[in-house]
Amino acid sequence: MGDRAVSESDIIDRYLKPLSAGFPGAFGLMDDCAALAVPEGDELVMSMDAVAAGVHFFPDDDAADIAWKALAVNVSDLAAKGAIPVAYLMSLAFPEAPRHSWLEGFARGLAEAQQEFGIVLAGGDTDRRPGPISITITAMGTTSAGRNLLRSEAHAGDVLFVSGTLGDSALGLRLRQDPQLAAAWGLSPERAAGLVTAYLRPQPRLGLGPALRRYAAASMDISDGLGKDLERLCRASAVGTAIAIGDLPLSPAAAAAVRADPANWSIVIGGGDDYEVLTAVPSTLAADFRSSAAAGGIKVTEIGVLDDGEGVLFAAVDGTPLKIKAGGWDHFAS
Amino acid sequence: MGDRAVSESDIIDRYLKPLSAGFPGAFGLMDDCAALAVPEGDELVMSMDAVAAGVHFFPDDDAADIAWKALAVNVSDLAAKGAIPVAYLMSLAFPEAPRHSWLEGFARGLAEAQQEFGIVLAGGDTDRRPGPISITITAMGTTSAGRNLLRSEAHAGDVLFVSGTLGDSALGLRLRQDPQLAAAWGLSPERAAGLVTAYLRPQPRLGLGPALRRYAAASMDISDGLGKDLERLCRASAVGTAIAIGDLPLSPAAAAAVRADPANWSIVIGGGDDYEVLTAVPSTLAADFRSSAAAGGIKVTEIGVLDDGEGVLFAAVDGTPLKIKAGGWDHFAS
Repeated sequence: MGDRAVSESDIIDRYLKPLSAGFPGAFGLMDDCAALAVPEGDELVMSMDAVAAGVHFFPDDDAADIAWKALAVNVSDLAAKGAIPVAYLMSLAFPEAPRHSWLEGFARGLAEAQQEFGIVLAGGDTDRRPGPISITITAMGTTSAGRNLLRSEAHAGDVLFVSGTLGDSALGLRLRQDPQLAAAWGLSPERAAGLVTAYLRPQPRLGLGPALRRYAAASMDISDGLGKDLERLCRASAVGTAIAIGDLPLSPAAAAAVRADPANWSIVIGGGDDYEVLTAVPSTLAADFRSSAAAGGIKVTEIGVLDDGEGVLFAAVDGTPLKIKAGGWDHFAS
Repeated sequence: MGDRAVSESDIIDRYLKPLSAGFPGAFGLMDDCAALAVPEGDELVMSMDAVAAGVHFFPDDDAADIAWKALAVNVSDLAAKGAIPVAYLMSLAFPEAPRHSWLEGFARGLAEAQQEFGIVLAGGDTDRRPGPISITITAMGTTSAGRNLLRSEAHAGDVLFVSGTLGDSALGLRLRQDPQLAAAWGLSPERAAGLVTAYLRPQPRLGLGPALRRYAAASMDISDGLGKDLERLCRASAVGTAIAIGDLPLSPAAAAAVRADPANWSIVIGGGDDYEVLTAVPSTLAADFRSSAAAGGIKVTEIGVLDDGEGVLFAAVDGTPLKIKAGGWDHFAS
């Protein structure tokens, strides 16, 4: 055997089949369909997202990191809905037969992510076609029937929370593109590496599930940047809000980056790839939400309160309104 | 507005959202996740397949045909398992912003297919990336819990059936590539057009569902050609079979094509894209299966009987063994 996989069944048998172990409905990836039983009283929550080389990751990123991220961005959608991950389907497209070494790394990254997220490969397909390597995943989880945490169920007066810290991933991407920035931002090698890791290995906030299921009114993950995603939540719920950027939770590395160059605020707010949870909680439940989140090991920060207005206003640290274009990633914007 | 769609939300709001009407769990495509309730006693059957321009369809095919086929190849997997289609997720990748006229045709083709197959759009994503237009679909259906029709449950003595006729699509592809062949094969324009339509608009055999659920032991759809897919069924079930190619069901057009050029048998057997159902039925149930299929409006043909051997032997019309390499489509074979 050469160093490139020669057939679909080669890829499936050696690398993908072990990832389906323990899930009977995967049928060992030997069949055209997968089967999934949903427990009585539950319903299925599903997300489908693709990542492609040169668009969502660098072609020379470690294959294990690529795999982790492809699965994490989908599981993050489930996490934001308070769903419990169950299984996923994956469609792979390769422009040429992939190297065994790449497939080994890719399968290892998926195995690590599966273990961490409690999800297993149930099926999919593998294809050869021109263009970048792309990985399309449909992730499925369960939640109590009728307990859907939408973007559109927030109300004026609800408290806005975000999990974790914002901007690390987008700043990490900038460092990945231009490592010299680390010095300009005054970052130690460890802090710089931490930002890059945030970009490569996003952590879906599954620990927030119990708090979300119990207390949240509306919830979504921040994949396209707080600015854009908060706008979406406000539009869907017909509410508005004002955010003082000084209240946004930043890691020490991100705080250093915005201190060194305030223009980095636009990366923090509009850069995308955070995969933190943005949620609106009725004010009477905010304290309970915070305690429940802490019990799940997830730090949450109150970033504002929803009002009857329209849209999102950002105010600078000194209180002056910011003319931040609440941008963020649009796949078709030029 | 120019003639090209300018944003993801433009594509979603104008073209995709109407396709989700009537399915509450799609949330009007306004959210990151879709929700699906599975009735008690049922389980979910899922298939995920991608089609890409230049690989699975011609870039200049009518967008409505492209859409139909993208959905049909997935629903065909459900049909072969006797599942009842419910909903699908779709991930679209465009190398440049698509034209409104293309999106209109694409949405029309999906609407026609949805209506025909009884399935509805529940979610997905839209992305811009280099490479061919590609459409990845995860189709979901329901079946009775525990009633999975696998490839691997056939036994020696079972009767092999196929639905419809074989080879029309692969011959239609040849005509699509070289329209002059129609004259060489002695086909009227109507018959030639019929083969091309078989290629462009495959018909998942959903009418066979009741017969499959009640009588079949093993079942799969023929997507990569009878030769390859029958080999897979035999290998998965550890059985063998011998097929007299004179027993294979052919349309009048395909029959004319193989009469005119016997080399066309390799297209009929190995060409792929049939999307007919290949199923093994215990011999004592074969007559009932045939009646039930007829009641569902689907013609089925007995093509052989499974035995204790290994692999698939094809015999010519005169009975001599054929050295047909039981090939078929492999996405990585050169």
